[in-house]
Amino acid sequence: MKAATTIHVLIGTALLGMFANGACAAPAKELPPKPSVADVVKASKPGDWRALDPENTLYMELPTGRVVMELAPSFAPKAAANIRALVREGYFDGLSVIRAQDGFVVQWGDPDEVTPRPFKAARTVDAEFSVPAKGTGQFTLLKERDVYAPQVGHVNGFPVARDPKAGQAWLPHCYAMVGVARDEASNTGNGSQLYTVIGHAPRHLDRNITVVGRIVSGMPLLTVMPRGSAALGFYEKAEQRTPIASVRLAADVPAPERSKLEVMRTESAAFQAVIDAQRNRGGPWTKVAAGAIDLCNVPIPVREQQ
Amino acid sequence: MKAATTIHVLIGTALLGMFANGACAAPAKELPPKPSVADVVKASKPGDWRALDPENTLYMELPTGRVVMELAPSFAPKAAANIRALVREGYFDGLSVIRAQDGFVVQWGDPDEVTPRPFKAARTVDAEFSVPAKGTGQFTLLKERDVYAPQVGHVNGFPVARDPKAGQAWLPHCYAMVGVARDEASNTGNGSQLYTVIGHAPRHLDRNITVVGRIVSGMPLLTVMPRGSAALGFYEKAEQRTPIASVRLAADVPAPERSKLEVMRTESAAFQAVIDAQRNRGGPWTKVAAGAIDLCNVPIPVREQQ
Repeated sequence: MKAATTIHVLIGTALLGMFANGACAAPAKELPPKPSVADVVKASKPGDWRALDPENTLYMELPTGRVVMELAPSFAPKAAANIRALVREGYFDGLSVIRAQDGFVVQWGDPDEVTPRPFKAARTVDAEFSVPAKGTGQFTLLKERDVYAPQVGHVNGFPVARDPKAGQAWLPHCYAMVGVARDEASNTGNGSQLYTVIGHAPRHLDRNITVVGRIVSGMPLLTVMPRGSAALGFYEKAEQRTPIASVRLAADVPAPERSKLEVMRTESAAFQAVIDAQRNRGGPWTKVAAGAIDLCNVPIPVREQQ
Repeated sequence: MKAATTIHVLIGTALLGMFANGACAAPAKELPPKPSVADVVKASKPGDWRALDPENTLYMELPTGRVVMELAPSFAPKAAANIRALVREGYFDGLSVIRAQDGFVVQWGDPDEVTPRPFKAARTVDAEFSVPAKGTGQFTLLKERDVYAPQVGHVNGFPVARDPKAGQAWLPHCYAMVGVARDEASNTGNGSQLYTVIGHAPRHLDRNITVVGRIVSGMPLLTVMPRGSAALGFYEKAEQRTPIASVRLAADVPAPERSKLEVMRTESAAFQAVIDAQRNRGGPWTKVAAGAIDLCNVPIPVREQQ
């Protein structure tokens, strides 16, 4: 068995090959050795990384540990601001994970639709299903065509889809991305219920919901939640829900209690090397290099600050 | 909240919209009403479905229930035959789920690489990473381009990728597909360790492993397994593994104990209607119909026999 890596690569992608089954056999035809994603990360320089922004980083404390999510305010400024406001008034503290639908999403917030918990933040927030691409940050194009969008790539550590003709950009529903649940009206998602993608990217939701960020650490705490047996994976009974002790903004947490994480700069050459390592894997296990990569299969490395 | 459906749609796709957050708002602009996947399934005729083949259906009994997988022997005849042989000699009974890597795979079989459980079935099986497309069954083309393969579509209830120039076809690594774990040599996967995809489709594995079928019921029993903390998500301690009571071929199980499932015929007009319902969703919740669909987002409906 190959050695483990300490890097968190959150986008549904293994760094290493599958597992031996113990049988012996003659050596197979091999592809030439090639740096793996782990190798590229190891060879990267400090300038290839940025720390998470404390004003845009949330810690959700569950009984099993901390989930860290990073907001992408350039793609959802109003939603991010309202989530920040909700968090700062302690809105999520004592609420719970209310939904786990297999192969789809895990969702958290207020389970009570009849007498919802009061809050001071906005009750309605304008839809930010897509935003003007200009001003969202430096876009690095992925060369592959995409099934759902004219262009895809990355901005500031997030996967991004774009329509150059319309001049619009949006965050796609890749694994670990965080969206703002809403009712039928477009402006009914105010951040009081959030969800993350736990299965194959449901890209048909793109541009139908405000996507506001991604989970950069702690996904396994959410993906193993028991699936809810009510419609859409909601839990039928209160005791089936996992309680949320608190959600805090990193900026409001004393420095020693903060998670010290950094994300690879997606505008760096190192990130291009990561993509290429995953696009064309080499070495003794791989027999056919894919030669291409799907947006949601691109690993966006996150690690402890060095 | 909308009503639940009783249909198992296993390919990472919700039939219904997201959840309301309790806020009230003026009616939003609506897309015209349109049959949903659930509507199409409801309107389907008995001839749009086929029962699972008992000679190609496996029941894996876990403490939490039964996982049902269907083999696709036209894409992996040798692997399917060896898995059938292993199952018929009771090979898996008393073994365990040995690996859960977040966003990637859950794997089961013999954890002991040093003194593996003896068996009579073949120790090595020729690779079936791709096979001649001719003879694999009636192919229904999906019109969308694919990032990883020249053509994609469906055969007999399974997603399929093809290279028409090479005349080859293979099963892709979509959610719930089952693959044959192997060591570095191509012929070292004999079916004694199998895995299923639990996250975003790791299509870069396509044509590197023999994919032998898919899980048609019971995915949630596997996806919630605690993630292993050793390299590649293997469990470090024996007590962390989930025991497998037995794996049986449906043909060897008395009729009253069989799962009575049927899968939608992927060559039917009903299945085309399913794809279109998912490709272009309508109704009051959806604001933008995707207009396209990714192979691994196509739901392949499975239900109790009617």
